[in-house]
Amino acid sequence: MSKVRVAAFSLSLDGFGAGANQSVENPLGVRGPEMFAWFFATPTFQRMHGGEASEVNPIDAGFAARSFENVGAWIIGRNMFGPVRGPWPDDSWKGWWGDTPSYHVPAFVLTHHPRETLRMNGGTDFHFVTGGIEHALEEAKAAANGKDVRLGGGVSTIRQLLQRGLIDELHLALSPVLLGQGELLLHGINLRNLGFGKPTVTAGEKATHFVLTKNSEGAEGWQAA
Amino acid sequence: MSKVRVAAFSLSLDGFGAGANQSVENPLGVRGPEMFAWFFATPTFQRMHGGEASEVNPIDAGFAARSFENVGAWIIGRNMFGPVRGPWPDDSWKGWWGDTPSYHVPAFVLTHHPRETLRMNGGTDFHFVTGGIEHALEEAKAAANGKDVRLGGGVSTIRQLLQRGLIDELHLALSPVLLGQGELLLHGINLRNLGFGKPTVTAGEKATHFVLTKNSEGAEGWQAA
Repeated sequence: MSKVRVAAFSLSLDGFGAGANQSVENPLGVRGPEMFAWFFATPTFQRMHGGEASEVNPIDAGFAARSFENVGAWIIGRNMFGPVRGPWPDDSWKGWWGDTPSYHVPAFVLTHHPRETLRMNGGTDFHFVTGGIEHALEEAKAAANGKDVRLGGGVSTIRQLLQRGLIDELHLALSPVLLGQGELLLHGINLRNLGFGKPTVTAGEKATHFVLTKNSEGAEGWQAA
Repeated sequence: MSKVRVAAFSLSLDGFGAGANQSVENPLGVRGPEMFAWFFATPTFQRMHGGEASEVNPIDAGFAARSFENVGAWIIGRNMFGPVRGPWPDDSWKGWWGDTPSYHVPAFVLTHHPRETLRMNGGTDFHFVTGGIEHALEEAKAAANGKDVRLGGGVSTIRQLLQRGLIDELHLALSPVLLGQGELLLHGINLRNLGFGKPTVTAGEKATHFVLTKNSEGAEGWQAA
């Protein structure tokens, strides 16, 4: 069954999903990369971006690999796509990911400012959606053609879809780091009232993986807890 | 060396250190006990309160046992001591823990309302401190006589001492549950700026244990992270 899911999303122990002050120099926000140590070590990341080979924990590697499986379309917020704000001055910004982004499927970018679809190498088309987040989700579901829609982030995009009850599954990679400041992922969102069941936990090496699934166990799951 | 520490403090995945609406029926707040599943299963708890014997995870059991080692005095907030609010109507409320509380050392209760020291069986003396939290800490340190001062909670007490920079070590038992509402432990507190190093992580069965130590690695620890 097709799911709307967040996968391989790193969270700091103090609850931040991104660091503060995102910029060209700090696409993940200040200190943000510290949360991704578990991901940077995986073959999934190394194939995408190159990087130092290291002894890989199979748990962390498995979560990284599965996050890309059966994904038919992505939704990403504008701030995740890039640091440009306001109307697009030109077409020069093409994302953080070079000429051949790792998406390889249609990716719907949320923005208030229209822009022509951007076709990259390797099957990634960036569609710029100005009709709102629910409209983007409809388009992404249609494009996914029965596969999953993965929400890349950032924090604000995930929060909006969570609050509207539109996310089926959430995989959080909790990293043993303190950011101190940044964007809080879950603050003020009652996941239990939104229908999420008891999380499963799997200990990796550099992150602890929690998977939250909507209605996975229903009310009974909680009563037995 | 004598430390001021929080130990075996349960936290939900959504960041709550206590459930909502604490009362006589719900001393840990609504749904609060769900966070303590890891602790209820340990020999430490079973010796204290009785309970069903179960197969015990040695990691969870070890953290529970160590939380009581080398403790010379406790500090507990008034709401942790009981549900009575305002001036003490009489001496009938003697805590949640029966005639022989498991503290077995002096325990300093924060309150705005004076009350005579309450001597319980087994060496627990409840001292009611009206001079403020820093004064309570001084008294507790003196009473601990070189051993550690353990902060029992609740959330508000820990937050106040954290914000004043007076806590040396924090052991959080992160439980795979969602409370949805309650008291957030770390919200708005920048632990990194307060000098805490990179947390250590140990996976138990029913909780993931994080230990945060002040200046454990210093600035270098973070730079290397």
